[in-house]
Amino acid sequence: MRTVYVNGAYVPENEATVSVFDRGFLFGDGIYEVAAVVGGKLIDFPAHTARLHRSANELGMRFTVSDEELLAIHRELISRNGVDEGVVYLQMTRGAIDRDFMFDTEKLTPTLVLFTQNRPLVDTGVAKAGMKIVSIPDLRWGRCDIKTVQLLYPSLGKMEAKSRGADDAWMVRDGVVTEGTSNNAFIVTQEGAIVTRPLSPSILPGITRAALMDYSAVSGTPVEEREFTIEEARNAAEAFITSASVFVGPVVSIDGVELSGGKPGPVTLGLRKQYIEESLKRAI
Amino acid sequence: MRTVYVNGAYVPENEATVSVFDRGFLFGDGIYEVAAVVGGKLIDFPAHTARLHRSANELGMRFTVSDEELLAIHRELISRNGVDEGVVYLQMTRGAIDRDFMFDTEKLTPTLVLFTQNRPLVDTGVAKAGMKIVSIPDLRWGRCDIKTVQLLYPSLGKMEAKSRGADDAWMVRDGVVTEGTSNNAFIVTQEGAIVTRPLSPSILPGITRAALMDYSAVSGTPVEEREFTIEEARNAAEAFITSASVFVGPVVSIDGVELSGGKPGPVTLGLRKQYIEESLKRAI
Repeated sequence: MRTVYVNGAYVPENEATVSVFDRGFLFGDGIYEVAAVVGGKLIDFPAHTARLHRSANELGMRFTVSDEELLAIHRELISRNGVDEGVVYLQMTRGAIDRDFMFDTEKLTPTLVLFTQNRPLVDTGVAKAGMKIVSIPDLRWGRCDIKTVQLLYPSLGKMEAKSRGADDAWMVRDGVVTEGTSNNAFIVTQEGAIVTRPLSPSILPGITRAALMDYSAVSGTPVEEREFTIEEARNAAEAFITSASVFVGPVVSIDGVELSGGKPGPVTLGLRKQYIEESLKRAI
Repeated sequence: MRTVYVNGAYVPENEATVSVFDRGFLFGDGIYEVAAVVGGKLIDFPAHTARLHRSANELGMRFTVSDEELLAIHRELISRNGVDEGVVYLQMTRGAIDRDFMFDTEKLTPTLVLFTQNRPLVDTGVAKAGMKIVSIPDLRWGRCDIKTVQLLYPSLGKMEAKSRGADDAWMVRDGVVTEGTSNNAFIVTQEGAIVTRPLSPSILPGITRAALMDYSAVSGTPVEEREFTIEEARNAAEAFITSASVFVGPVVSIDGVELSGGKPGPVTLGLRKQYIEESLKRAI
């Protein structure tokens, strides 16, 4: 049985609870991060902490734990749960108080929950076989740049993809691809350009996205930031997604149209290899 | 200390908890209803149950409790907590399981939480003095007809209204008013027509809205369903909101522009009186 962290205590997972009055439960008033663990070490950890601060700032949520404490909790859970490869999930909410749309943040103590999940991240079926993607309309709210727990639509989107024989969905708003249900979307054009849409309130500022852009720039093929349609994606040479737990995930079909011969493309696999190598060097 | 209902048990409010793995907490995968209580009796209860079923159906959520049981739980909480006037809040989620965007509803046991809040509903400051409204853009997701707990934006909207010296916000999408942060929006035109926008995925199918439309039709002034802009609302003779706990709430200013002389208008007050009288007749 896993050990879970809840508001200062390490408890067995079946005793890990929050108040029914928690604003994360009643209002979706919570933010989260998912950090990858490889070889027992955290990938891109400072970037996750920075983004958590950004999310809290955007929502006017108090931040009552230091970055050092957050790292210590992550490490304690990795140790207690024997995580070699997997993720640490962190959720922070505004706190618990009798239900009211109005709130006084200063009177609330934020809720902090962390738990781990053991699973392979490096040698995975997705990395070898790639993912099938279908497109769905993007019906999410207007501040998808804030990593809140309002994830019902992405969750339903992934289920719809499954029901259509695919692995995940890319969302389309105003005629262009925004992102995947839990990842950023990239294409490699027939001319070899690596393309992803620019940051905006419509997408999450992905940490793997940013790291991959940094690494790509150094290695001589900078990522081009511009919007693209789902039609352009279907006609691309390759496509892939980036996320903290999938890293770089090859896309081998979009809406039933095969890309790169229905197998992970060479540019994608190169970027995946580069990302894993570089991020492991920086893992803590 | 209140007694709260959680998954079959009546517990003290400080012991009312749900798993941190509850999909209501992790994904906003939960639905809710708020039923008014006046004189210890439930207002419009069958309509709340019917809407809860609708929300569950739209999300493919299991419904493992009968309507009779739901009524019995409501009544037990009203009795235990001595509620004469107030509300009963009900939240149902898909259930608790290790975090994954993918889910198998059939393997999950829905979480059911109910609690009460004592507060005056009939003789209130809002009913006497009216509400000041400001307009904000509607940034919510595309299925606001489903009563989910993804309420962060409405909650922030109400806080923004407060910071601008108002009581609540009306949201504007595509140039027209959708609804209030937790209520439906109505205007009374200078010609005496009562207007509210038609139902669509952009607004909640309000129970008080529907009841008021029924009562109005019978008394000879049927409500006209059409979209209106915030400019038309500012120039209206009167404006008001409907919700399960405010009933009919007079709006006395919009974006700083006074309506009906800055006091609740006569049509609004008549509708409020009518709604309370009629719904109390049907209270159970």
